[in-house]
Amino acid sequence: MDKDGLKAFFNPKSIAVIGVSRKPEKIGYQLLRSLIMSGYQGPIYPINPKANEIQGLKVYPSITAIKDYVDLAIIAVPAPIVPRVLEECGKKGVKNTIIISGGFKEVGGEGVKLEREVIEIARKYKIRVMGPNCLGVYNPHTKLDTLFLPPEKALRPKKGNIAFISQSGAMGVAFLDWLAMEEIGLSVFVSYGNKADIDEVDLLKYLMNDENTKVITMYLEEIANGREFIEIAKKVSVKKPIVAIKAGRTEAGVKAASSHTGALAGKDEIVSAALKKAGMIRAYDTHELFDYARALAAGKIAFGENIAIVTDGGGAGVMAVDKLTDNVRGVGLKLAELKEETIEKLRRILPPFAIAHNPIDLTGNATPEMYRKVLEIVTNDPKVDGIIAIVLIHPPMMNETIVDQIEEIFRKSEKPILIAATGGTPTQKILLEYQRRGIPSYPEVERAVKAMSALVERGRFLKKIFKK
Amino acid sequence: MDKDGLKAFFNPKSIAVIGVSRKPEKIGYQLLRSLIMSGYQGPIYPINPKANEIQGLKVYPSITAIKDYVDLAIIAVPAPIVPRVLEECGKKGVKNTIIISGGFKEVGGEGVKLEREVIEIARKYKIRVMGPNCLGVYNPHTKLDTLFLPPEKALRPKKGNIAFISQSGAMGVAFLDWLAMEEIGLSVFVSYGNKADIDEVDLLKYLMNDENTKVITMYLEEIANGREFIEIAKKVSVKKPIVAIKAGRTEAGVKAASSHTGALAGKDEIVSAALKKAGMIRAYDTHELFDYARALAAGKIAFGENIAIVTDGGGAGVMAVDKLTDNVRGVGLKLAELKEETIEKLRRILPPFAIAHNPIDLTGNATPEMYRKVLEIVTNDPKVDGIIAIVLIHPPMMNETIVDQIEEIFRKSEKPILIAATGGTPTQKILLEYQRRGIPSYPEVERAVKAMSALVERGRFLKKIFKK
Repeated sequence: MDKDGLKAFFNPKSIAVIGVSRKPEKIGYQLLRSLIMSGYQGPIYPINPKANEIQGLKVYPSITAIKDYVDLAIIAVPAPIVPRVLEECGKKGVKNTIIISGGFKEVGGEGVKLEREVIEIARKYKIRVMGPNCLGVYNPHTKLDTLFLPPEKALRPKKGNIAFISQSGAMGVAFLDWLAMEEIGLSVFVSYGNKADIDEVDLLKYLMNDENTKVITMYLEEIANGREFIEIAKKVSVKKPIVAIKAGRTEAGVKAASSHTGALAGKDEIVSAALKKAGMIRAYDTHELFDYARALAAGKIAFGENIAIVTDGGGAGVMAVDKLTDNVRGVGLKLAELKEETIEKLRRILPPFAIAHNPIDLTGNATPEMYRKVLEIVTNDPKVDGIIAIVLIHPPMMNETIVDQIEEIFRKSEKPILIAATGGTPTQKILLEYQRRGIPSYPEVERAVKAMSALVERGRFLKKIFKK
Repeated sequence: MDKDGLKAFFNPKSIAVIGVSRKPEKIGYQLLRSLIMSGYQGPIYPINPKANEIQGLKVYPSITAIKDYVDLAIIAVPAPIVPRVLEECGKKGVKNTIIISGGFKEVGGEGVKLEREVIEIARKYKIRVMGPNCLGVYNPHTKLDTLFLPPEKALRPKKGNIAFISQSGAMGVAFLDWLAMEEIGLSVFVSYGNKADIDEVDLLKYLMNDENTKVITMYLEEIANGREFIEIAKKVSVKKPIVAIKAGRTEAGVKAASSHTGALAGKDEIVSAALKKAGMIRAYDTHELFDYARALAAGKIAFGENIAIVTDGGGAGVMAVDKLTDNVRGVGLKLAELKEETIEKLRRILPPFAIAHNPIDLTGNATPEMYRKVLEIVTNDPKVDGIIAIVLIHPPMMNETIVDQIEEIFRKSEKPILIAATGGTPTQKILLEYQRRGIPSYPEVERAVKAMSALVERGRFLKKIFKK
């Protein structure tokens, strides 16, 4: 299943690090440190002609001096030396390399020529190259970590089922660090930089069959092989959802992106239409990328646009309805019309003054048990396609058992349930607990509503594909 | 300056609490507890005919049994008893009462009649009434706290210069708790419930002259005296900015709001136009209310729409430009064209490969000192009206001294500077440190961009008013 020969980038049998350093301020030091700290189990061969031992490992003068098989070489030497080093990799028979070094196409002039040279050498020896000018791979499943940023400063997220591929290294790291805090797990992270060889198309092909990956997220600034990309993205989308930020969507943004990556981006309406055709879900603001991804990763799709809102705060319910039904500033979905039978069932268990029609308002008398009962009734209404549960924890009878009560229905329900709650530290703690149990939770109602719209979009695509 | 007689609601000389209880699960217990815990310095007179002492305080059988002057009475007895209690307040000569109790207009039928009765009694005795069905007031400056939610469960924000008045109690508490976590200070919080007497107009009039208040925020579901409201709001806006969420803006939202508060709301386009005419800044999504308010509270306004973006991550810069210049999904402002002189000055201090035109990209070579120098140059460019500084802390030479470096320019600059950074716990810690020093900071670029648009809107309004 690895006809493109990418497996060694994600699960290498052995690793050489070319350009290790003794000095902690150097990339070549931090790179090795991350690899060791991640707990990678295979052999690591550091390479530096002027050292014998670094960080407790034996150092080799060159890659050709290593007797054993090298599955992946990570290159962090100055750009002008990269071609020579790559040539040596070729002679050694290394088939996968990550070129961390910058100073190529992204700086223009000489850099462009240097990158072309690198590619020619790679072709000659049939070496697959990731980068240059990238961070490489972080794979918590195989404990591979080629990121030269110290894990104390740029936290790494835990194991999970969302893949994240980022054209921008800095953007990638900012997201990783945030994901770690939010305890959102990743299947793998890839920063592929200038994509001289390996690009989005290669990565999508690989991730399509990656068992650990249920959802793919992407940060893109330009798409190189547009037609091929859309073709493969469509294939992947049928199997698993892709959520993407495509930055550089305004004229000024495109200009900014082109001075940043040296790449040109197309008209945004065309991009948008193409992504949509491929079944991809587009994220715009920063938080949307993983807000959508974790809703999708929960595995429950909305096969219609009729949404029920359950709340214990009237105001928050009104704000959710506004965002849900507004076509301009909101997502343009519908407030589900509950069946008469559902409303009657709700009335039977709700306290007086509570509101039994959609948005269902349990009021300040809400209890965790009441939430469970209400969600059970609402998820069983055939006129409801998805549920947003606004669960403020301030009402007197609310407490942390709410997570258990909601989890019970969340496990049973085939329909998506998304949680929203606004509040301080106690609220954030409970939101994190939902997240740990795989229940998507959001710190404001609008984010939950937008995530629901991603589930509806996914449902529409799947219905179209499978003529359901 | 208190011709409406509202001062006792914010800074009472003495307080009676009618309906205190011995049982911690009762509102009448928690209310007294909050008052005591807040550190309120004046005399507190708890009232309950069946108790002698509660929480260490002497209990009185009725308000008329108190010999001393009562400046403010807080009423938390069952709704049907409220008229009798209010009558007693009138006889005692109490001029300010907060009726916490629910069971009035918001429940319909008998409740509507009961509320009318309450108002008649209030008129007879010239009593000003806040509520019923409200939380009352939290004023960290005078240490007044009438909120019956335990401070352990609903955290209280620190002292500050933003006033927050909320028609919804639950929404109010969710915000308060969040503000406490974010260390955003309040001048005062008011939950005024059914507004049988005191409404937005009264509160705006009072806050216009409140020295502690620099910015007013509002959560509204309907506006009762539209014309009067807009008239006073316009007067206030000239003196200090007002930011408001007006929920119930869609047809479904209006319907939801009306079952929640029993009130009817008008056409949203009309509401929007009226708010704009009054110089009010409208917030839509939850986070926008205080994102805008704290940008405005920093006291620096953008008197034009030309914005400079400074970043140490190219991707984040591109995303900010997209949000800034997009007319549909963004705020429709302009990327400032820097003067040639500015660009030359920047080139002199920036490392090679950094980008000296707007968006200015310091790249991964950014240092805290470099940020200071760049911001100094950019704030002095007359073609720049405001600056968004994206300060990712992951580049190797970045560290927490960045806050000092930025603060130096922030203090000197007459132009607004807003900070954005995405990341995990280390980033959040630094964002909080900016906030503590009064420098508005945001966890994603889009939020900083939207906040900048609020400063531009404020600038436009002031220019129009003062023909500047």
